[in-house]
Amino acid sequence: MKALKERIIKDGIIREGNVLKVDSFLNHQLDIELFEKMGEEFKRRFEGEKITKILTIEASGIAIASIAARYFKVPVVFAKKTQTKNIAGDVYTSKVESFTHGKVYDIIVSKQFLTEKDSVLIIDDFLANGKALIGLAELVKESGATLVGAGIAIEKGFQVGGKLIRESGIRLESLAIIDEMSVEGGVVFR
Amino acid sequence: MKALKERIIKDGIIREGNVLKVDSFLNHQLDIELFEKMGEEFKRRFEGEKITKILTIEASGIAIASIAARYFKVPVVFAKKTQTKNIAGDVYTSKVESFTHGKVYDIIVSKQFLTEKDSVLIIDDFLANGKALIGLAELVKESGATLVGAGIAIEKGFQVGGKLIRESGIRLESLAIIDEMSVEGGVVFR
Repeated sequence: MKALKERIIKDGIIREGNVLKVDSFLNHQLDIELFEKMGEEFKRRFEGEKITKILTIEASGIAIASIAARYFKVPVVFAKKTQTKNIAGDVYTSKVESFTHGKVYDIIVSKQFLTEKDSVLIIDDFLANGKALIGLAELVKESGATLVGAGIAIEKGFQVGGKLIRESGIRLESLAIIDEMSVEGGVVFR
Repeated sequence: MKALKERIIKDGIIREGNVLKVDSFLNHQLDIELFEKMGEEFKRRFEGEKITKILTIEASGIAIASIAARYFKVPVVFAKKTQTKNIAGDVYTSKVESFTHGKVYDIIVSKQFLTEKDSVLIIDDFLANGKALIGLAELVKESGATLVGAGIAIEKGFQVGGKLIRESGIRLESLAIIDEMSVEGGVVFR
């Protein structure tokens, strides 16, 4: 998606260790006009698919999912991160390993809000090692709902997540896929 | 706001200890159509005010703030919760005591995204003891930005937050103020 790629080139900051900071428009300060274009593009890519719910994960996925939901006219459900040991039986849970923080945490969704009648589109801001997305897909599976696919804003194409997800048969639509990235050379899109 | 009050009566669940569960439409599953009506109402209430940014706090404030931002045509900045001991000098910080979890945590906003040139509207889903809102107002003050006011979805009018905020001179617009609440008697709005 042209507008997003241009914005990454203009305002993304590359740091050593494959870090891409996009917090001026994507995950700390949020450019809602850009999110509207992204929402429209997700709708275009998943046109004709039956979708009853958008699933995302707190915190930075929530804004993109909420704006996208306007185009799909469905509710958003966001999975909560928790490190609580005892989780009540009325939630679906899976485990996610955080790349940034090096911790394992549980993600949970109340059973009320995902059922076998749902057709789910997962939306998130970033895809790198794929752990969050795999965790979300597991929640969908556990609920008996149909997983229609996943829409991602920025995929780090040089990390393993995208490959894992595509090979598992999940339809993955990333609006910008970065194949190479360096402080000197900038960003190369697929 | 009528649509929100009706929805609280229809789908809100009251539990002992002044707990109001609205997670089927406000803070776990999100009814984006309702949020659009809320965004429009915030815009109506703050009509004519100069607003350059909407500030909220993760996680459940993000969706309401993002949808509201469409009507104000401004970016959203969300404060992050952290329990990291060492916070770098490029952020504004304040402390918030959580009513639900009984913990104190820091909230941070990057200095890049709030400056003295900004006129800020704070938006959040809930107001009870006011700690989160006071913490956000402190961040705005620290940045030198102008605080235009605060827009809240549900105010628990029987708790102290609303009174504290109004007495401090901050303009507060709550879309539904609950003055009484009990498992037997239901909800009484102001």
